[in-house]
Amino acid sequence: MKWKRSERLVDMTQHLLANPHTLIPLTYFSSLYDAAKSSISEDLAIVKETFEERGTGRLITVPGAAGGVKYIPVVGEREARDIIGGLIHSLEDPDRLLPGGYLYMTDLLGDPHLLDRIGKLFASWFADRRVDAIMTVATKGISIAHAIARHLNVPVIVVRRDSKVTDGPTVSINYVSGSNRRIQTMVLPKRSMKSGQHVLLTDDFMKVGGTMNGMKNLLQEFGCEPAGVAVLVESEDVQEERLVEDYLSLARLRKVNEKERTIELIEGNYFTKGGNPQ
Amino acid sequence: MKWKRSERLVDMTQHLLANPHTLIPLTYFSSLYDAAKSSISEDLAIVKETFEERGTGRLITVPGAAGGVKYIPVVGEREARDIIGGLIHSLEDPDRLLPGGYLYMTDLLGDPHLLDRIGKLFASWFADRRVDAIMTVATKGISIAHAIARHLNVPVIVVRRDSKVTDGPTVSINYVSGSNRRIQTMVLPKRSMKSGQHVLLTDDFMKVGGTMNGMKNLLQEFGCEPAGVAVLVESEDVQEERLVEDYLSLARLRKVNEKERTIELIEGNYFTKGGNPQ
Repeated sequence: MKWKRSERLVDMTQHLLANPHTLIPLTYFSSLYDAAKSSISEDLAIVKETFEERGTGRLITVPGAAGGVKYIPVVGEREARDIIGGLIHSLEDPDRLLPGGYLYMTDLLGDPHLLDRIGKLFASWFADRRVDAIMTVATKGISIAHAIARHLNVPVIVVRRDSKVTDGPTVSINYVSGSNRRIQTMVLPKRSMKSGQHVLLTDDFMKVGGTMNGMKNLLQEFGCEPAGVAVLVESEDVQEERLVEDYLSLARLRKVNEKERTIELIEGNYFTKGGNPQ
Repeated sequence: MKWKRSERLVDMTQHLLANPHTLIPLTYFSSLYDAAKSSISEDLAIVKETFEERGTGRLITVPGAAGGVKYIPVVGEREARDIIGGLIHSLEDPDRLLPGGYLYMTDLLGDPHLLDRIGKLFASWFADRRVDAIMTVATKGISIAHAIARHLNVPVIVVRRDSKVTDGPTVSINYVSGSNRRIQTMVLPKRSMKSGQHVLLTDDFMKVGGTMNGMKNLLQEFGCEPAGVAVLVESEDVQEERLVEDYLSLARLRKVNEKERTIELIEGNYFTKGGNPQ
């Protein structure tokens, strides 16, 4: 069949969105739609302009024989403020208060639309850095890790507290959890990571950073290095020194008052950290 | 700004894909693009035709004042066979063999592109059923649950083996695991589910179905009912009676020969189960 431009634009958009950070040769589209390369280039110019106008992503054209086009998911500042503002508003709901001053966040970590926006937001920040994989610790961070991974097109590696028979041979380390100074264990299947990779660490909540530090130690065991640290919510209430200094956060928990049932959050360092190339 | 049709098509496609199973009023698009409703209807007809031509989804138009348009992710049979064939091929790699005849699948459960296709495949099958939420047990099933959830636009609920302080009050049940007849515990935060919901159960692997059965018991405690059972791989090697009869599977593990290092899988019941409305 012969495709019209309007149909090509719809289909192309869909293909690009489903394959972020992937170089697609122009010949792929020209043979798929039975169209001249010049027509495909014109189509892509329209897609690129629309993506940029709406601030939803960049389209990078790589010239030459081995070239093609690559879609890079990007979140503009207005959208970013909207996501973070909404997150803070939702987290300040006093119904989230649990005994001991803990915050119930499990519902947010199960909301697919919110996760998709959060994942794209983090992916946007790390879009121009080298990220080969994303690592988190079971269980709460897994949904965030996958949400980011989808937009960066890299695999997710889940560290566990205990090993299972379906993991095969594992590497385990002991580390000191930051808040209560307990010795804890982290386990990772040996075959889950090759050496030399740059790995983005993520979790839903960070206080002193003991878990993040544990993951960093685990990376060393595998001959890998951290590509960055991304947390949804950081806690301001840190009595001792933070173990992780270089991290990115969306929200910062300032104060929880159990008696008056108030929760106070502010923006994390997403906008102030610097190094965000968008 | 005034949008051209070509730009509207790109942006509309993006918006629809990001909001599956969501009714979007035509007035949303006409005010966003400052265009007449008739133009928007023409745009949507092009999107609809292209989606259907490529077999990547349906566009349902709901007429009337409260009407609009809804994108339903769909996977055509050719694509479905491609996904399942690829999955089986990958799982038959002898390097996956672990002592005891277990299969290493952790890498597949961390691959964002594969997960997205698997999630869409399951979502396609359940597209016309009532699904209010997706439930799985930590840890391995979580990535599949989220992949399905994104395409059905419903929340994910993760059952755990133990409770955490950040869960708040929990409901726990004991159940008999199918394979080794051990008594196990499942825990779910009380506030994670309302009564009366139809919940799709999912996991990466099912043998006798003890875990699935446990989740069904848990649903009862919450006054909810199962909307279906979706498993990535089912095992044929079931000595005793299966505890769950009505389930959907992508692949079926037939035989593992540790000595000769062979793994044999066939298609699950995805194509033969019936009831798939696509």
